[in-house]
Order: sequence, then C-alpha cells, then structure tokens
Amino acid sequence: MKWVNFSVPGAASAYGILESDDCIRAVRGSPFGTHEPTGAVHALADVKLEVPLIPRTFYAAGLNYVKHIREYAEQTGERIAEPKQADIGYRAVNALVAHDEAVVIPPDAQQVEYEGELVVVIGKQARHLSEADALSCVLGYTIGNDVSERLWQASDRTFWRSKNTDTFKPMGPWIETGFDLDAAETTVRLNGEVRTHFRTGEMLFGIGTFISRMTRYLTLYPGDVIWMGTDGKSPRLKGGDVVEVEISGLGCLRNHFVAAHDMPR
Amino acid sequence: MKWVNFSVPGAASAYGILESDDCIRAVRGSPFGTHEPTGAVHALADVKLEVPLIPRTFYAAGLNYVKHIREYAEQTGERIAEPKQADIGYRAVNALVAHDEAVVIPPDAQQVEYEGELVVVIGKQARHLSEADALSCVLGYTIGNDVSERLWQASDRTFWRSKNTDTFKPMGPWIETGFDLDAAETTVRLNGEVRTHFRTGEMLFGIGTFISRMTRYLTLYPGDVIWMGTDGKSPRLKGGDVVEVEISGLGCLRNHFVAAHDMPR
Repeated sequence: MKWVNFSVPGAASAYGILESDDCIRAVRGSPFGTHEPTGAVHALADVKLEVPLIPRTFYAAGLNYVKHIREYAEQTGERIAEPKQADIGYRAVNALVAHDEAVVIPPDAQQVEYEGELVVVIGKQARHLSEADALSCVLGYTIGNDVSERLWQASDRTFWRSKNTDTFKPMGPWIETGFDLDAAETTVRLNGEVRTHFRTGEMLFGIGTFISRMTRYLTLYPGDVIWMGTDGKSPRLKGGDVVEVEISGLGCLRNHFVAAHDMPR
Repeated sequence: MKWVNFSVPGAASAYGILESDDCIRAVRGSPFGTHEPTGAVHALADVKLEVPLIPRTFYAAGLNYVKHIREYAEQTGERIAEPKQADIGYRAVNALVAHDEAVVIPPDAQQVEYEGELVVVIGKQARHLSEADALSCVLGYTIGNDVSERLWQASDRTFWRSKNTDTFKPMGPWIETGFDLDAAETTVRLNGEVRTHFRTGEMLFGIGTFISRMTRYLTLYPGDVIWMGTDGKSPRLKGGDVVEVEISGLGCLRNHFVAAHDMPR
C-alpha cells in the first residue's frame, strides 16, 4: 500500500492512499494514527506531492555500503575505516524537500553530489527489540537523496552544512508498506542516464541490526525515519541537472538542481 | 516573562505564564503562535512541569568553551583542537526529560557526566540574518543538561548513544524571554555542592555568530533550540545523585540520576 502526503491549491496537505497508478483516495488522519477515507478522490496528476512525513527524529546510518566507503576515501584522501558497529547519525528536517521540488546549490558550494538511499519509516513506538523482532515497528519505506557537499563534509566538525543545507534532503515520493528488500535494486539516473546501480540490501549493517542496537538505548517513535546509506559514487552536480533515485518495488524520487544565483530572489 | 509547559492529572499538557514565584496563568495556544489566557490559574506546586517544548530541530554547539575543550582532551587523551568556526551539531528529542524527571543510567554505562548549558529557543522563522540582527529570531532561553557517557563518546562514530540515550537530555524548567546573557553565570551543583561555575557568556562563538552562520545555509523555525555548550568538568555520576544546573536570571534545572537496575520494570 502506498501512503502519499499531497496538497491541492487552497487546502492544507493531507494523507491519501495511492490506489492505482494515478488515483489517490483521500484520508482523514494519518498512517501513524487512526484514519478513514474522506470519500474524495484525486488524480495523481492533479495534486502536488509533499514530503511523506516530517520526521520526529531524522536518523541516518551514514557509511553503510563497502564500495561507497572506499570511493569516498579515494576522493577525499581521508582514510576511513569501515564502521565496526552500527552507530546511527542524524540529519535535519529543515533540509527536506518533496519529490519534484528543487535542490538549491548555494553560491559557495563546490562539490555537490547525490546519495540514493532507502528510508525506513517507523510506525510504532519501540524499545528493546531483538534483531528478529526489529522490523515489527516499521510502517514502510520511502526513498531519500542524501545530497552532500564533499568539501564541507571534509572541512567542518559536523555535517550541519554539508548535508543539512536547506533543500539538501529530498524524500519521497510516498511510503510503501509492502516492500521486498531482498529483491530491491537502487538505480540513480543523472539527466536520464544510469550512473549508479546497486543491490539495496547489500548493507554493511542491516535494518534489523540498526533498530535492535538503537532500541537498546533509545525509544523509536511513530514518524521517526532511518536513512540507510548509499553505495557507489556520484559525479559533481550543477544547476540544471535532474537526479532520479529509483528503488525497485518502491518508486522513483526525482529532483532538479538549481544554482542559487539562478533563483528568483 | 516565563513560559511554562505544565500538566495537571487527567489533562493534556498546556502552556502557561509564570506570573509570580508560584502562580501559573494558563494559556490557550503557545508562545510560538497566537495565545490567550484561559482564565485558569494554578499554583506551581500543584502542577507537573513538562519539557518546555519538543524542538523541531535540536541543535547543539558542542565544544564552545575553552576550558571544557582542554579538560575533555586531558580526560580522554584525545587531542582536540579548538573549533576554528561555528559548526553546529545535533541532539535528539527522544532523550528529552523535564525538570525533576529522572535521568536513567544504562547498565553498561561507565562514565556519565553532566554538562550545564544555556539553551536558545527560536521564536521566528529566520534566514540570512546578520550577526547584528541574529537575536531578532530568539523567543527566549532555557537550561539544558547535556548528559554524556564519555567512553561511548570516544568509541562511537557519532554521539547517538553517548549523548542521546533516553533521558540524557533534561531541559527546563521554563522559557525566560527577558534574559541578560552578559550578567549570567552558570552554576552546577551535585548533591547540593557547587562543582562547576562559569560565566555563561564566555563562549568561543557567541549566539549571534552561530545564528548568523547557520542561517546562511538553513532556515531556523519557531520551536528550534540551540544548546550553547558548557565549561568545566563533571565528576562521574551515579544512581542517587541530584544535579542542579542554575543560570542566574533564568532558573534552576534539577534532575536525579537513577541506575537502570534500580528501576522498576
């Protein structure tokens, strides 16, 4: 089942269920609580898709695919050991944009890259979950693009600017509740051409490992998200580029990049 | 003016204004939007104080006082250079607890310490603020205790567990809108005895510097908070300890520490 968060002109955003390729059945409530159909139906083409949820806490695995770790090290000259344990990190909600919204490249950004990622959406409050039970708190999955400025990532003490500049976190287009991770492949296209391709499930630490370890120390809440990291290498992005992150069985998240000096002020 | 978030048995939490040392005038709405008195009045002693707000984004300056940087380096043996620029970091809302709530020390935590911090509460959406205008987006101030487990802080790739274990982020007791930073002093007492004392304003990078730099790249929103770092050194804390963080002109945040194995399950 696909949960969309959408808006139509003049109304607040609302949740709906995408019932076929282009029909949204509007819902009162949310996937995180009680909900019921309003009776309204919209064509997908007639609505604006919004960010599927504003996370309560925005977790991110960071380095979690072996090839990406090697290529990042080659590129930055920084030697990075493979993480020895599943230590989760954070991203920030200010940076979120929806499917088809623009990613704005700041005037002083030099090396902006994509990272296509699987996003886990938490649906139930959870603490002390075993690895075997870990997925019981998961509502579904969506797609994220962990846009990163590599020079700031290397120079700054934290990822605040390299990864959390406004518009650097596209997420969407919807939440899919029935997803087969083992069968999934992630494909990233730049201006229509495939540039990155990997098996989504070939993570260093799997979703269950992260959730089990996290919930040993902290409570996960409905509306938390966990971005699971990326594989491969991105070319340097520039204004005018269009990046599509497709995960088979999930959907395709598409965003165009705009240089800030080309933006209307 | 002091904004409190409080609850009485059987009712949802609500905002109020602390009008004297012990009288709360209840308010419909919040300090971040429209609000009006409900007419109800409560004695401070009759209510439970809640976390003054659940931040939208939970920012933290981290290392921002020179003495703390030196003492942290001495203690961990890790050489840490003074930050060269105001790079903000993040904490997580799962870890928040209110004034007078317990901080729970996990069974495998070995070196838990306090960090008494000034907390800036953002009241207005802001982007591209100059240092001179930076404080225009601030609603007020509260107090935080950035409880940290030093061995995890040294061993993990991120601060997820060392600083964001459930209950590790006491914040409160209220939001004070009229605060004189230049006159303020931070005092931390352990079981009634003063153990840490410093001038609150003697930061490496001031509030205006952080806000101006942050809003060059990101939008601050009402309900964001920025924890400003700490000075000095904490002893190792154990179950039964009571820590009070007092900032003159603001108030006093008090929390007791409990060993997890002493908790009812």
